[in-house]
Amino acid sequence: MTMSLDGYVAGPNQSVTNPLGEGGQALHDWAFAVRTFRKMHGMEGGTTGPDDEIVAESLQNIGATIMGRHMFGGGQGPWGDNPWKGWWGDNPPFHTPVFVLTHHGRKPLEMEGGTTFHFVTEGIQVALERAKKAAGGKDVSLGGGADVAQQYLTAGLIDEMEIHVVPLLLGDGARLFDNMGGRQTSYERVRVVNSPAASHYKYRRKN
Amino acid sequence: MTMSLDGYVAGPNQSVTNPLGEGGQALHDWAFAVRTFRKMHGMEGGTTGPDDEIVAESLQNIGATIMGRHMFGGGQGPWGDNPWKGWWGDNPPFHTPVFVLTHHGRKPLEMEGGTTFHFVTEGIQVALERAKKAAGGKDVSLGGGADVAQQYLTAGLIDEMEIHVVPLLLGDGARLFDNMGGRQTSYERVRVVNSPAASHYKYRRKN
Repeated sequence: MTMSLDGYVAGPNQSVTNPLGEGGQALHDWAFAVRTFRKMHGMEGGTTGPDDEIVAESLQNIGATIMGRHMFGGGQGPWGDNPWKGWWGDNPPFHTPVFVLTHHGRKPLEMEGGTTFHFVTEGIQVALERAKKAAGGKDVSLGGGADVAQQYLTAGLIDEMEIHVVPLLLGDGARLFDNMGGRQTSYERVRVVNSPAASHYKYRRKN
Repeated sequence: MTMSLDGYVAGPNQSVTNPLGEGGQALHDWAFAVRTFRKMHGMEGGTTGPDDEIVAESLQNIGATIMGRHMFGGGQGPWGDNPWKGWWGDNPPFHTPVFVLTHHGRKPLEMEGGTTFHFVTEGIQVALERAKKAAGGKDVSLGGGADVAQQYLTAGLIDEMEIHVVPLLLGDGARLFDNMGGRQTSYERVRVVNSPAASHYKYRRKN
């Protein structure tokens, strides 16, 4: 996940037309500039170098993905007759089973390229169990957003965190680390790579 | 200032006897371990290496210091007959004029080693003007705490930030970046030094 220096993963006033909030798009400038990310999302060109290597590294060994309803998109409430199929077009960049946490069930949605969205209404523990099973020994990636990350952090279920910190103060918005009920956790920094655009961290839980 | 990965500069439930809050002391383990910091605070021993060099660097070219009443300590309200003289003993580690923002005026307090505490009741702008004048062309350092930092950030008066990020989730407490009223600012990373204990950033404002 990409976070501003002041801890936000999206700017203020998020909406269906502006899902990253005011100023939030700038969080991802570093990713949109690099070749591997652009290729994942069907765009040409892009730079190579440390930022690109980090994106490539983050894709290795992912066997399943978990995300919240807000990240999947399509507004709130029941799905309706012509339901939303995600932000990512016919061939989403996940290429794994994706477990979407929602209060509103629906049938699995099979897309091109190996991505199938499964809609889980039984909460974070069940989503994790299903994702682990689907991953077949590979890693389960938590895609976001902040609210889902907080639920898993508070439950002590995050083993590793990959965080990209960009030198921007958003001033307001959705925080990554919030509502954790005072849970204190120590992490060991496994790796850090710095580029002018971002600091790329990988942390592993110690306790 | 030292900040946890989740953005806190102190843990929850700060008090006069526990000014850094629950778990907050761990933020400063990296500093207490190094020679230059220990020497500043009258302690022997300590390590050398990158963490130590960062402390030494941060002391260069400081001509005056600003801090909030909470960081100076002594509780809230009027100062009383036997007023608090700070946490740091007779020879505080600042060795410059220190401008303490407070709602309660008192006479300047001259300590050993070049530290004189001046108590400013006219707000952050006046404190900055006085500190700049006292610094005589050197830098004005903002010592803390978070509330004072937020006031200066919101007013657009912070040119550079030196932030030490430690791999710890405190889960609750006093945030460094909060209450900024949606002000969005871009920074350029001037320098980063990583040690196992912390990532030491220096940022310069771009807009």
